[in-house]
Amino acid sequence: VTDEDRHAVEMYEFLARLFPICRSITGDGVRETLSHISDLGLPLVIREIPSGTQVFDWSVPQEWNIREAYIEHESGVRIVDFADSNLHVVGYSVPVDCVLSLEDLQCHLHSIEGQPEAIPYVTYYERNWGFCLTHAQRESLPEGKYRVHIDSTLEDGSLTYGELIVKGQTQDEVLISTYVCHPSMANNELSGPVIACYLAKWLLEASPKMTYRFVFLPETIGAIAFLSRNLEWLKCHMIAGFNLTCLGDEGSYSYVASRYGVTLADRVAEYVGNTTSPSFSSFSFLERGSDERQYCAPGVDLPLVTLCRSKFGTYPEYHTSLDDLSFVTPAGLAGGYRYVKACIEAVDNNVVPVASCLGEPQLGKRGLYPALSKKGSASASTGMLNVLAYADGGNDLLDIAGLTGLELRDVCLLVEQLVGLGLLTTSSGRTRNSSRLGRDGK
Amino acid sequence: VTDEDRHAVEMYEFLARLFPICRSITGDGVRETLSHISDLGLPLVIREIPSGTQVFDWSVPQEWNIREAYIEHESGVRIVDFADSNLHVVGYSVPVDCVLSLEDLQCHLHSIEGQPEAIPYVTYYERNWGFCLTHAQRESLPEGKYRVHIDSTLEDGSLTYGELIVKGQTQDEVLISTYVCHPSMANNELSGPVIACYLAKWLLEASPKMTYRFVFLPETIGAIAFLSRNLEWLKCHMIAGFNLTCLGDEGSYSYVASRYGVTLADRVAEYVGNTTSPSFSSFSFLERGSDERQYCAPGVDLPLVTLCRSKFGTYPEYHTSLDDLSFVTPAGLAGGYRYVKACIEAVDNNVVPVASCLGEPQLGKRGLYPALSKKGSASASTGMLNVLAYADGGNDLLDIAGLTGLELRDVCLLVEQLVGLGLLTTSSGRTRNSSRLGRDGK
Amino acid sequence: VTDEDRHAVEMYEFLARLFPICRSITGDGVRETLSHISDLGLPLVIREIPSGTQVFDWSVPQEWNIREAYIEHESGVRIVDFADSNLHVVGYSVPVDCVLSLEDLQCHLHSIEGQPEAIPYVTYYERNWGFCLTHAQRESLPEGKYRVHIDSTLEDGSLTYGELIVKGQTQDEVLISTYVCHPSMANNELSGPVIACYLAKWLLEASPKMTYRFVFLPETIGAIAFLSRNLEWLKCHMIAGFNLTCLGDEGSYSYVASRYGVTLADRVAEYVGNTTSPSFSSFSFLERGSDERQYCAPGVDLPLVTLCRSKFGTYPEYHTSLDDLSFVTPAGLAGGYRYVKACIEAVDNNVVPVASCLGEPQLGKRGLYPALSKKGSASASTGMLNVLAYADGGNDLLDIAGLTGLELRDVCLLVEQLVGLGLLTTSSGRTRNSSRLGRDGK
Repeated sequence: VTDEDRHAVEMYEFLARLFPICRSITGDGVRETLSHISDLGLPLVIREIPSGTQVFDWSVPQEWNIREAYIEHESGVRIVDFADSNLHVVGYSVPVDCVLSLEDLQCHLHSIEGQPEAIPYVTYYERNWGFCLTHAQRESLPEGKYRVHIDSTLEDGSLTYGELIVKGQTQDEVLISTYVCHPSMANNELSGPVIACYLAKWLLEASPKMTYRFVFLPETIGAIAFLSRNLEWLKCHMIAGFNLTCLGDEGSYSYVASRYGVTLADRVAEYVGNTTSPSFSSFSFLERGSDERQYCAPGVDLPLVTLCRSKFGTYPEYHTSLDDLSFVTPAGLAGGYRYVKACIEAVDNNVVPVASCLGEPQLGKRGLYPALSKKGSASASTGMLNVLAYADGGNDLLDIAGLTGLELRDVCLLVEQLVGLGLLTTSSGRTRNSSRLGRDGK
Repeated sequence: VTDEDRHAVEMYEFLARLFPICRSITGDGVRETLSHISDLGLPLVIREIPSGTQVFDWSVPQEWNIREAYIEHESGVRIVDFADSNLHVVGYSVPVDCVLSLEDLQCHLHSIEGQPEAIPYVTYYERNWGFCLTHAQRESLPEGKYRVHIDSTLEDGSLTYGELIVKGQTQDEVLISTYVCHPSMANNELSGPVIACYLAKWLLEASPKMTYRFVFLPETIGAIAFLSRNLEWLKCHMIAGFNLTCLGDEGSYSYVASRYGVTLADRVAEYVGNTTSPSFSSFSFLERGSDERQYCAPGVDLPLVTLCRSKFGTYPEYHTSLDDLSFVTPAGLAGGYRYVKACIEAVDNNVVPVASCLGEPQLGKRGLYPALSKKGSASASTGMLNVLAYADGGNDLLDIAGLTGLELRDVCLLVEQLVGLGLLTTSSGRTRNSSRLGRDGK
Repeated sequence: VTDEDRHAVEMYEFLARLFPICRSITGDGVRETLSHISDLGLPLVIREIPSGTQVFDWSVPQEWNIREAYIEHESGVRIVDFADSNLHVVGYSVPVDCVLSLEDLQCHLHSIEGQPEAIPYVTYYERNWGFCLTHAQRESLPEGKYRVHIDSTLEDGSLTYGELIVKGQTQDEVLISTYVCHPSMANNELSGPVIACYLAKWLLEASPKMTYRFVFLPETIGAIAFLSRNLEWLKCHMIAGFNLTCLGDEGSYSYVASRYGVTLADRVAEYVGNTTSPSFSSFSFLERGSDERQYCAPGVDLPLVTLCRSKFGTYPEYHTSLDDLSFVTPAGLAGGYRYVKACIEAVDNNVVPVASCLGEPQLGKRGLYPALSKKGSASASTGMLNVLAYADGGNDLLDIAGLTGLELRDVCLLVEQLVGLGLLTTSSGRTRNSSRLGRDGK
């Protein structure tokens, strides 16, 4: 058993601990989830934004909490019980306690005909109540009267999110965003928060160059609330961001591009994805669906992409009870972790190198060139000379990897060696070519 | 019989009324044609520029008028008579009245060996005279003496053109240019003026956003004379222009690009053409031949393209008597009218939308998002959100249609709806992406 | 026998005179070579830079000279003698005179197993000594003692290069760089200096528009030394440059691009190469290897490319005794000369034409348009009108050739004719499109 295996199992076990919690956009399920994250030893700061607070075009909703819910047949049999699966109750259902005919009950039931063994995940955006169940079970419901009972509250409270900063050597920031608002589903969403936690643990020990801001928030309204408080800071300091979701299955790697697909985050995701796996997929912003919708909206314009293995909406288990602890695996999580880590390293290591001398340097006097010149003798130093050739201030390391055909890791090593020799200086990873949006100089 | 059918027949009948008139670069034929246009109830202003006036590199030529012309065999038979077809006399022929041998006559005759049934259209740029006839007739000319008689005048007068303004809500102008200098040929040239007239009638009732300037002028020298008087104004106000010619046959739609093919007029013609018909053809500026030559010349640099069905020079009837009232049809004219109208609408509706709020708006509270969120429930609002996503001030409606894959008409409707909801504002159709020439920011 | 044949033979004979001289990075071989160049009647200025002078990152090395060297078997037979081929001694070998066993001798021998009949060309960058011989000879060395003798000196002196200016009508400069530091090899390197000499002879009589600076220098250190003295001047005045090497064999034409492949020199080489031969090859800067390495280094950033027939490193004779007077031919040299001459002419003739009048000019009154307009009659003047159409100040002649599909020579002739007619003016060959590096406006 390797360290990496142990690490994978540790992530999986943490995910399994978070799985039973009934999360929603607001409420105690979010708080309990964040409390588990703190328990990992992470310096998480909990933010609460009161219901009714205006955040951009939105208003923070009332807080929803639920204790108990079931449907009971007149025969006394509990047909559906929230205690069995928190997917059984439609999110934001108002309290109810009444007796109905099967016909009337049907109007409040949700199932998926094409996936008869799956309980769907459904949420209300208006005052209503409902239950979700498998289509198989729904088909077998006997005639008769049913008692429905939902013991929930929908009242003023707050929206909760967690924020965690890993200070780096500079104020340049990388944002890692992930969401904690879905009930018991493993890939979408717990893979994102779990991998984020373990990346934070790693970075806290790694003394990175950039500062890392992790946010664990409810999707959409949480991202909007966070942005409404931090947009100006992020516009000044954020150089790249990654939204993490659907990273724990064993499907191919993918990413969802930013609005024009040309920010540093896009370039990194493309490079890492393509060099990691031949089956890597790029999805355009037209196929967005997670918080890249907010981070890349006009006027917000942050350089963020979403990283996934099997992208949300593309696998049948998505948004059903089938997205469970068997769909996500330790190996799947470990791969997702490595993928995001490689993206972070590519950003963290990225610099703009500038050659220190005019013309080629004399490598020979530094022992870097063979003492004997004959056919082919220059090849050993070719990589080094190619890096120097494009170290003209217009290219960052990713550009140089693309221009020279060298692997990014080799470019990094060569730059380090050349800096040590006094042949290069480097400036921060921002060049005119890695502007935030990459379009029209914005 | 539909309204559109009646409209098509009306255009065709108007074209048939203009057909017999003997037009040339200057002279009474042009004036009579413009007078018919006024008679449609259009507020046409007639401009006269005296012979000898310097216009850019050119000088307005003398005015040419012709009353009678024929060739008579010594047997007394009239072989060729201007009264039968005004194509029989070479344009700008000087007066002549003499008797020649067949051999000497041949030097003044023009026919097309490969099209033995066609009378060619020929014009002189120097003092000379000549007759045009079918090659079949020419081959059958008997030996003997011939009397040739041309009763024409070539003397100081003026160049005549007509101008018609449809005032819009802004000073931004769209130029519609077409020419009235060819004798009896139907597609090239009467289809252009006829469709222009009926577009003017439509616009006068449509209260468009842009101002429309229609000009009916002799090709080349007329466009140059018009430009020499109006260039500074056009450079300030003209946002797009369309030169109309060869729009009455039933061939495929096409357009001739501006110098670099990237102005708003080009983008509109490409979009409308490609979405109208799979057989749409784009011709580069190297294949130009009509007044786009002047409007797009260096230093003039106006954003204009030429719209055609079968492009001039590409069909065998071109510049012969075969381009007659049977080559042009009501259906052909109706299609040409719809094509140009769609281009005008695309320009008139074009705006640069800018999202009013940061992040995505809350569509739910506006009743635009389903109250229930389950798999696939967002798709109804996807179009709206995609328009908002690219409403960043850098794109006009044509750009957004291209970026989102939505049809332009749907983008227009969505923008209207979003403006109504207060979620978008719009500015005029000029962005940095729709600059006049589209190259190097000019 | 044509003039061109005589010219080819003259070049070949001059090359043959230079062939036996023992050149190295420094020393009397370089001086003797430059002296032969002066003897052609060329106004060459000899520059000497003392050993130890700091030039950018480098230091000018000590001067190496050699009089005699051999290996003698104990039997008295001279196995290897510098008098037979100056490739037999490793460049920069220190003096030695001693007796060794065959085994000890082997450590100082160089041969190529895969090319058993070739003496390799080898140079030291450290204090050492060695001999080169064919692998066949090396295999047949008998056992026994060997006396090795090298009578060389390695001591303070200078680095020598030659510079030759052909004054043009402007201060805009074209740099022709070639190297004179290799012992007896014909294609790499004597073809370059020989063709440079004959181009200089031609330009001295041709009164070119640009000023031409020819440099004959040792590769790498010579280019660096030259640049360290002249960089500011070159940055201000040099509009294009060509490094000449491997131009005397009969292989296909090729060139090595500048750093981003988009300078005027690249555009010229691409145009001339592609229109000269369908087998023309473009090599990227990643495949560089000659002095383009220095001229195109970051911070130096000069618009220079290397012109070759068979590119260095791509043919088996490269850097061996097989690159001899049979590998280079009069016809090969003549073709190389024509290729470089065509590139020079393309630069020298290059201008940015600007149309003098608005709209198209009236070609008819200048006798350039047929007096009679009928189908197809405009085609004769189409080339002229196309040149005028793109004479908008944004294009040089190469751009116009590309935009119109005309041959560069025809564009030149038409521009000359149009200037004569007062329809065009021209400015120097620099436009925003022909910037030095062609990237990001640098």
